[in-house]
Amino acid sequence: MSTPTLQQSPTRAHSRILGLGAYRPDQIVTNDDVCQWIDSSDEWIRKRTGIITRHRADEHTSILDMTLGAAEEALRSAGVAGSDIDAVIVATVTHPYATPSLAAQLTDRIGATPAPAYDVSAACAGYCYGIAQADALVRSGAAEHVLVVGVEKLSDVIDNHERTISFLLGDGAGAAVVGPSDTPGIGPSIWGSDGSHWDTIGMTHSLLEVRDLSATAQSDTESAVTALETEAQLWPTLRQDGQTVYRWAVWEMAKVARRALDAAGITADDLAAFVPHQANMRIIDELAKQLKLPDTVAIARDIADAGNTSAASIPLATHRLLAENPDLHGGLALQIGFGAGLVFGAQVVVLP
Amino acid sequence: MSTPTLQQSPTRAHSRILGLGAYRPDQIVTNDDVCQWIDSSDEWIRKRTGIITRHRADEHTSILDMTLGAAEEALRSAGVAGSDIDAVIVATVTHPYATPSLAAQLTDRIGATPAPAYDVSAACAGYCYGIAQADALVRSGAAEHVLVVGVEKLSDVIDNHERTISFLLGDGAGAAVVGPSDTPGIGPSIWGSDGSHWDTIGMTHSLLEVRDLSATAQSDTESAVTALETEAQLWPTLRQDGQTVYRWAVWEMAKVARRALDAAGITADDLAAFVPHQANMRIIDELAKQLKLPDTVAIARDIADAGNTSAASIPLATHRLLAENPDLHGGLALQIGFGAGLVFGAQVVVLP
Repeated sequence: MSTPTLQQSPTRAHSRILGLGAYRPDQIVTNDDVCQWIDSSDEWIRKRTGIITRHRADEHTSILDMTLGAAEEALRSAGVAGSDIDAVIVATVTHPYATPSLAAQLTDRIGATPAPAYDVSAACAGYCYGIAQADALVRSGAAEHVLVVGVEKLSDVIDNHERTISFLLGDGAGAAVVGPSDTPGIGPSIWGSDGSHWDTIGMTHSLLEVRDLSATAQSDTESAVTALETEAQLWPTLRQDGQTVYRWAVWEMAKVARRALDAAGITADDLAAFVPHQANMRIIDELAKQLKLPDTVAIARDIADAGNTSAASIPLATHRLLAENPDLHGGLALQIGFGAGLVFGAQVVVLP
Repeated sequence: MSTPTLQQSPTRAHSRILGLGAYRPDQIVTNDDVCQWIDSSDEWIRKRTGIITRHRADEHTSILDMTLGAAEEALRSAGVAGSDIDAVIVATVTHPYATPSLAAQLTDRIGATPAPAYDVSAACAGYCYGIAQADALVRSGAAEHVLVVGVEKLSDVIDNHERTISFLLGDGAGAAVVGPSDTPGIGPSIWGSDGSHWDTIGMTHSLLEVRDLSATAQSDTESAVTALETEAQLWPTLRQDGQTVYRWAVWEMAKVARRALDAAGITADDLAAFVPHQANMRIIDELAKQLKLPDTVAIARDIADAGNTSAASIPLATHRLLAENPDLHGGLALQIGFGAGLVFGAQVVVLP
């Protein structure tokens, strides 16, 4: 039997971000609130991190609620109906079910069924990873309109008494619709990982320890009780080696950002905006300095109010920049995400 | 300021699977073993599911060990060094850390750092979702060689006494290297979701219930003990509505499989092999019947020995078909994954 040649979908020349959406939960957690749990001060936190408040979702607000809020606004902003979406990517590390994906649930709620739907685990680089994938799906002809959401309910995986990362974190969701474009709207993605630093940001312990305690509880309640009483925490929560992350972010991410500019064929002078992951105001300032950004470039500093919202931080920060500076529409933004893995992703995009 | 036009990566015409790898854990669980836990029989299980044994990893074999085993063989088979891989996609629902990804760890272990690395949550369709993404990344010019791994240590998320799904499940890993091709090697992906059936396959309860118990344990051990004693299970495990899944798989997946053939511009007569997700032998038989596959088409029936390994089942089954039938190399295979979400993904591929 001779093997016939497979047909392929026609490719598209270009993609771009057509619209953005944001969801910020109602509860505001101040630095004074945080200092109930850790020995610190409003002054110290502002000086070291630039954070003044963070938003956190209450117990009645699910990660799906947040995801929907951002997705629906992104669809409206893009002028695209749910039924026109033909791939849904949700970047998150805080969906509380091993399976099914949050994306499958979202897809049905926005009327995009039967679009393919999957969750992506790439931590604080998740949104930029999602944009890289959406760009590839649109340009390869695999999809026409892709919804990318970065969403985290980090308040579910923090220990308020822990002091390496918890006090930095907030909840939120940001979304983008990526679709076809007549001109290039998303530059080449400079994305990557360094798993040699896999332990630098992550969970206190494995979920398998929870499973083992569960197994113990079924056969021997007394041992389980002893475990509950002696172990500081059953539930795994986030922690980081802040110094290592800080140094890596400042030195390595400046190089990645420059490579994203080079790959797009532009310089810092061509930028209208710089939207780094909102991890720490000092990292944002240091990156801006190393990139020699001219004063005309708007720099996203959403962290002051929103804290670090991981995969949600870049679309949230971009959404706010555009709301506060309407003249940025159509300009070029350099966005760069980085976080647990370690992983990073950067690209130059035309702002919707 | 005028906005310059962004450069883009050159696209590639075609991609294909260059090599496959498999990892099957040592422990064999027989139907008689299973019948220690549930009221059933070897005969009933064989008749209703086609499963004779499943492989399960022991406590010393981590999901990373399995992932590495499959990935390393795929690299050798493809003749591609770890350092030549420039994107790593791991499809799994059983990585026991919310973050970082298993993919970032794998990437470093195979010498592929600084390749981008992310985990994908698309359950039993995860491998086909990964192939769809890899094809888009290669053809859009975002990557040259992509490693896709489907891996599950499902034995970590089952309750052996549960009888809707646990007895079907096994552990394993399968991997593929996708790279550039002179001729089309991966047909258009027909992938999608139906989140209206989000509850049909999934976990017994949310991880947030575990978190709440943890919080209770810290403030009030006695209440936590009562919860441990009264709740059947602390640890969330898998369960399904088997009848609904069976009907959906048989009726809807036959349509999806036909669409994948149509999109690739071929008919069932052109196929060398059919590799459906290994969920149940009766589903495999029914799909083969509905697709009117000629007798010349080799049908993957790895489930008899391996059980249902979720995201790993298709690469494991393909790997075995090729080992047992070397004449299939270079032939066309129709692969289709489907599972929790509900999600599905199908494509025609040229066998490596």
